[in-house]
Amino acid sequence: MGNFIGHAAPGCFFLCFGLWWMLKYSVMWASRLGGGRTSSTHTVCCCGGARRFLGRVPIEGLVKMTFTTGGIIFEQLVAHWILIDSNGHFHILGNWQHTTMHSFFLLNGFCDILIALRAPVPSGIDYATMSLACSVEGLLFFYHLHGRGNLDVHVHQLLILAIVPCVAVTGLETWNPHTVYLPMIRAALATLQGTWLWQAGFILYPPFPGHDWDPDSHENMMFVSMAFCWHILGILLFMCVVYTVVYHIYQAKEKQLGNDMELGPLSSHMLQTHSDSELD
Amino acid sequence: MGNFIGHAAPGCFFLCFGLWWMLKYSVMWASRLGGGRTSSTHTVCCCGGARRFLGRVPIEGLVKMTFTTGGIIFEQLVAHWILIDSNGHFHILGNWQHTTMHSFFLLNGFCDILIALRAPVPSGIDYATMSLACSVEGLLFFYHLHGRGNLDVHVHQLLILAIVPCVAVTGLETWNPHTVYLPMIRAALATLQGTWLWQAGFILYPPFPGHDWDPDSHENMMFVSMAFCWHILGILLFMCVVYTVVYHIYQAKEKQLGNDMELGPLSSHMLQTHSDSELD
Amino acid sequence: MGNFIGHAAPGCFFLCFGLWWMLKYSVMWASRLGGGRTSSTHTVCCCGGARRFLGRVPIEGLVKMTFTTGGIIFEQLVAHWILIDSNGHFHILGNWQHTTMHSFFLLNGFCDILIALRAPVPSGIDYATMSLACSVEGLLFFYHLHGRGNLDVHVHQLLILAIVPCVAVTGLETWNPHTVYLPMIRAALATLQGTWLWQAGFILYPPFPGHDWDPDSHENMMFVSMAFCWHILGILLFMCVVYTVVYHIYQAKEKQLGNDMELGPLSSHMLQTHSDSELD
Amino acid sequence: MGNFIGHAAPGCFFLCFGLWWMLKYSVMWASRLGGGRTSSTHTVCCCGGARRFLGRVPIEGLVKMTFTTGGIIFEQLVAHWILIDSNGHFHILGNWQHTTMHSFFLLNGFCDILIALRAPVPSGIDYATMSLACSVEGLLFFYHLHGRGNLDVHVHQLLILAIVPCVAVTGLETWNPHTVYLPMIRAALATLQGTWLWQAGFILYPPFPGHDWDPDSHENMMFVSMAFCWHILGILLFMCVVYTVVYHIYQAKEKQLGNDMELGPLSSHMLQTHSDSELD
Repeated sequence: MGNFIGHAAPGCFFLCFGLWWMLKYSVMWASRLGGGRTSSTHTVCCCGGARRFLGRVPIEGLVKMTFTTGGIIFEQLVAHWILIDSNGHFHILGNWQHTTMHSFFLLNGFCDILIALRAPVPSGIDYATMSLACSVEGLLFFYHLHGRGNLDVHVHQLLILAIVPCVAVTGLETWNPHTVYLPMIRAALATLQGTWLWQAGFILYPPFPGHDWDPDSHENMMFVSMAFCWHILGILLFMCVVYTVVYHIYQAKEKQLGNDMELGPLSSHMLQTHSDSELD
Repeated sequence: MGNFIGHAAPGCFFLCFGLWWMLKYSVMWASRLGGGRTSSTHTVCCCGGARRFLGRVPIEGLVKMTFTTGGIIFEQLVAHWILIDSNGHFHILGNWQHTTMHSFFLLNGFCDILIALRAPVPSGIDYATMSLACSVEGLLFFYHLHGRGNLDVHVHQLLILAIVPCVAVTGLETWNPHTVYLPMIRAALATLQGTWLWQAGFILYPPFPGHDWDPDSHENMMFVSMAFCWHILGILLFMCVVYTVVYHIYQAKEKQLGNDMELGPLSSHMLQTHSDSELD
Repeated sequence: MGNFIGHAAPGCFFLCFGLWWMLKYSVMWASRLGGGRTSSTHTVCCCGGARRFLGRVPIEGLVKMTFTTGGIIFEQLVAHWILIDSNGHFHILGNWQHTTMHSFFLLNGFCDILIALRAPVPSGIDYATMSLACSVEGLLFFYHLHGRGNLDVHVHQLLILAIVPCVAVTGLETWNPHTVYLPMIRAALATLQGTWLWQAGFILYPPFPGHDWDPDSHENMMFVSMAFCWHILGILLFMCVVYTVVYHIYQAKEKQLGNDMELGPLSSHMLQTHSDSELD
Repeated sequence: MGNFIGHAAPGCFFLCFGLWWMLKYSVMWASRLGGGRTSSTHTVCCCGGARRFLGRVPIEGLVKMTFTTGGIIFEQLVAHWILIDSNGHFHILGNWQHTTMHSFFLLNGFCDILIALRAPVPSGIDYATMSLACSVEGLLFFYHLHGRGNLDVHVHQLLILAIVPCVAVTGLETWNPHTVYLPMIRAALATLQGTWLWQAGFILYPPFPGHDWDPDSHENMMFVSMAFCWHILGILLFMCVVYTVVYHIYQAKEKQLGNDMELGPLSSHMLQTHSDSELD
């Protein structure tokens, strides 16, 4: 899919997950940090609720499987499941490569569902398959670049620079899933992949005419490196805002909960049910 | 051995070990996971039996030594143990390189036997020598590629990509031998090396005429990267099947054992002996 | 800022921080090592005082923010905040790249202040953002070198060699902030970056006429590698001197304190206040 | 020192240390492994003696300082401490590079002595400076190769392949000095550097006429990679022999000691003094 849509569609996929993870882990972090009198109660009610809910319906896994199955079908609508055409040549290999990437994320989604259903699988298999999916993505991008222009190679190299730490971070999470930092970094890196895929689409296949980029200009190369850093900076600042907002909402809720706690266990229980339905 | 057999033979070696390890570690994993009433008894009977049996006859080490000694003899039947011929030139260096690789795996097999015989050697020396053997294999493949075609280099680079994590995983096992994940990954990587060596043989030295590959086509390069990912995916799916089947056989056995347990310790002992001979 | 000042100014920034850290961590190390009768009292008085003072006014963070804000303003006095000029070309990208680097160190300074003010941020965020700032610096330097002379590339590669361990060390400190070694190494590496930026300025933009370097001479390349090692050696020897002097001052103080301790708790308290104002 | 002696002399230095460490750590390993009745007594007598002796006279540090000071003087006998000659050119930079390497090993020897004299230095500084000395050696070799022949580059790349794990292993020892494996690996890698420096001398500057190597032959390149693996294999087999011999001497001694123990504490003490003087 060497066009704008081909970069924007997976970009949306990564952006969705990045933003969803940011929200999810900022709530988790706020509940961990939120000390004081009522924290333990609240932590139980929020996380317990979230876990119960996620246990019932494995959203993440289902979304991943839906997206990737859709991606595979869409790619094969063009390739018609033909790998070698009647002349003995390979047929639209780009689409087959994207199908391959989607398959690994499909496997990852399947493992997420298995974990959520408490199937007897080794714990951490969801992180391990995501690490594998990212490394396959990186591998295919790396060997994708043979014989392309300087700018194209540079843009994709920077994408690989966002993929490699993603592989490392999810690999570490396989062994040590209960940290605060690693999921945050994962969320940031997924968002970075998302925004950078959009940026790559804009640079390599400008959707609006009259904005073509000179593929061999040194200035363009320098700008692209810098733009990558700006994406990182922007995502970090956005994450700060998200975390601050979530933290303050959480603090306000906790205060309110603290006041309500004095009324009696009944109302606290009602509130808990209420906050469950709101937060999840 | 720059021919099809020269790639298929070591491929078989790695395939055998990969598949054997898959079976072995899936049994171990099932016995660890198999909780409930009778698990501890069963774990003892199965693993204890396996360990006793492996303690008596170090199969793995003997198989490794047989295969590699065979390989060295086979290579030297051609090279006649002549390194420098009468003109002062090196004589069939390829065969000597394969002999070198075989020697390291021979050393590894020897260390396996020493460990199995409880010789006073540092624990973990079997993993350390395997890590070394893999890194020597990777080193020789890496400096093997000077002046070859693009496709040849690419196929061997992907092989090195399967060898490097193998070095890392066995290196980690030296320090931490009692994990669930590392042996699984090692089994998968050994199988991957095996299937990829077969694939390399088919691509570089097509055994059936009329299927020659263009060594400089970009399409071929792209397909080869993708085929590598397919091998990974196929091995993972095959592993899933093996683990599921072993897990269900194990669960069925355990249930039956649980029923028999109620009859008395005598029959349980009989069953234990029975399951020993079956499982090993 | 492709001139001497453009290398000397950030060099000063890194030198200041390197030297300040050397002093700071040598005091910490001396107080940890200083065993004996009075050590616990003294440790409390010195470090407690330092911590109280640093808690009140987050010097490091403020200095970082002042320096980097100054750097950004200075760069943009030239670039006038214009990224794309009226002809559609990029405008003085070098200055924009430096602005980008400064922004990340500005963010790091801001996080330092947040930590010092005990804001509810994840602990270790000061080290994490410094690691990120260093890696962005390394990334921009790495893609900066396209189409330059051999000597220029070599000098900057050596700079990257000083930046990469800095990224690693501050990354490790995020997880494990209470070690003796890591801060020492960080201090040495920051000083190394500082002195090497000065050296790079002297080599690439000689401030005194008549000392131009031949950019393609192999001898110059060899000398430059060696000079890098001499910088390392010099910094290590300087660190040894600093640590020895601090250690002996500390020992002398402790002895004196031990003598004074016998006079009564009142005078000890006076001394404590005194040593606070002196040391901080 | 681009000649045979220039490679053989440092080769001897590394060989001496590699062999000495092999002996030292095989004794340590045998004393750790040697369980049974008398082991604790014997361990104390042997290691305690060795430690007391090494505590009195820091042999390793002194030998390192002697060797490297000798090396520096020898190099500067040729270079006359002149860095820039009267024409403004650099003067025999190769010798200055070797002087630089020697300085770092001199610093390492100095730190060894400080540790042995129980000076108040951070523990592990001896390993840290050795790791640094090796990395400086690797860095200088790496940038040494500009514009040389294929064979020369290849031989030195393999040397760097022996240096890099040495840096890693000594770096790990800084944090975790009491392992069995790391010192063994360090001993093997030091020996490998030693034998490979000799091999490099024989290949690049053949001491006997009529054995010149064609620097661009692909066969030579392949042989050199293989020879490197043979060095590894040879060193491993030699280490096995050393460890086996030491282990059996140790076992025999322990048995004898066990017999003597029954005679009384006096004779045991005599034996201890005796074994001290023999082993050290």
